[in-house]
Amino acid sequence: MKARVFVSLKKTVLDPQGQTIRSALAGRGYQSIAGVRQGKIFEIDLSPETDRDSAHKELEEIAREVLANPVIEDYRVELLD
Amino acid sequence: MKARVFVSLKKTVLDPQGQTIRSALAGRGYQSIAGVRQGKIFEIDLSPETDRDSAHKELEEIAREVLANPVIEDYRVELLD
Repeated sequence: MKARVFVSLKKTVLDPQGQTIRSALAGRGYQSIAGVRQGKIFEIDLSPETDRDSAHKELEEIAREVLANPVIEDYRVELLD
Repeated sequence: MKARVFVSLKKTVLDPQGQTIRSALAGRGYQSIAGVRQGKIFEIDLSPETDRDSAHKELEEIAREVLANPVIEDYRVELLD
């Protein structure tokens, strides 16, 4: 089983990295780009015997405790196949 | 209009950061996690007057030239709403 965890800065938190990319793109002539925010994605392989419900619970826990900083970041868990 | 660009290391490229996360999770007792690979996600706002086709073309170009290193990374562009 595969899963993805998306981690991104909360909307209220400044993202200087994204702003820098946006300015760089504007400087290269990409005028249609109004904003860029950068986040992280974790592609996770789970052992095949894991059942869906406990996998989802475990991944929510991992996202909250290890992968994201819930003070400034939002996360989302997505189970595939 | 909004878009997302996903950038991840090619399958053939080692991902030490992902391996470190995997070991850390195993050490914390998450035995069902068989593998972790870390990637980047760029959430992009486009000016409303941009049309879909040219936006997609432009984002492919941006992903290839600016956001990803095509030698070692794969990218994927996704247009939303």
